[in-house]
Amino acid sequence: MNQTPIGLGPAISFITLGVIDLARSRAFYEAMGLQAHSRSNSYVVFFDVGGQVLALFPRESLAEDAASVPGSTEATITMSLAQNVSSEADVSTLLQRAVSAGGTLLREPSSPPWGGIRGYFADPDGFAWEVAWNPGVSIDAEGRVAIREEA
Amino acid sequence: MNQTPIGLGPAISFITLGVIDLARSRAFYEAMGLQAHSRSNSYVVFFDVGGQVLALFPRESLAEDAASVPGSTEATITMSLAQNVSSEADVSTLLQRAVSAGGTLLREPSSPPWGGIRGYFADPDGFAWEVAWNPGVSIDAEGRVAIREEA
Repeated sequence: MNQTPIGLGPAISFITLGVIDLARSRAFYEAMGLQAHSRSNSYVVFFDVGGQVLALFPRESLAEDAASVPGSTEATITMSLAQNVSSEADVSTLLQRAVSAGGTLLREPSSPPWGGIRGYFADPDGFAWEVAWNPGVSIDAEGRVAIREEA
Repeated sequence: MNQTPIGLGPAISFITLGVIDLARSRAFYEAMGLQAHSRSNSYVVFFDVGGQVLALFPRESLAEDAASVPGSTEATITMSLAQNVSSEADVSTLLQRAVSAGGTLLREPSSPPWGGIRGYFADPDGFAWEVAWNPGVSIDAEGRVAIREEA
């Protein structure tokens, strides 16, 4: 009956940078040696970095996605970290744990246009964390994620 | 003669959050299930997360460490990503590549008080990246880092 409580780790799944100009940023990171994942498009760019994804997302899209709770946008969100979990239920469990620990709820769990379920919390300094269950992303036992190729 | 040029990847080494109150943030992340590394202290806190380190560092210390080039601090730096490399020479090579790619130099390579060599660049949106050679951090072939235990 003693299950490990749902927490952060064993690995951080995504680091998402909210960028002003997606094409400019994509070109920069490609020039730095990273290769964009085939599922990148004109809305979002993904780079696989060692079982983790570095994502580029327009800054307004990120801020809009991250914070829907009224009053939660006092600080502009320019970056988020994501913890992907392996079930829908774990999304709300982990968000509740964050609130109990002193974090702030930014978005209740809901479905984004790209599928799955996600919610957001902020840590004590306002850093935004997404908690996501996403069937388009695989997670191995070490917490390493991979974006699935298109079917 | 065709060596792979020094670039970002294969993994991001550190994610450093610049926090207001180190004890408060440490308590929050511990309550979220992460365990602080034994080398954490009253100046910095490290959490191993899947071959990567989530670090908490006082916000002023981070901003001071990241930007020493005059005029480079127009945007407040609250977070940094780090790419650890395996030789001192690679630090300046990777910083030069970032500048060639359209990034901005924030700090020329120099020695921080904790050893090794590090410099910083900003990407086109001002996100700060540290490039570090640090003998206190091991890096495996997949780019996974680990803070060495104290001798």
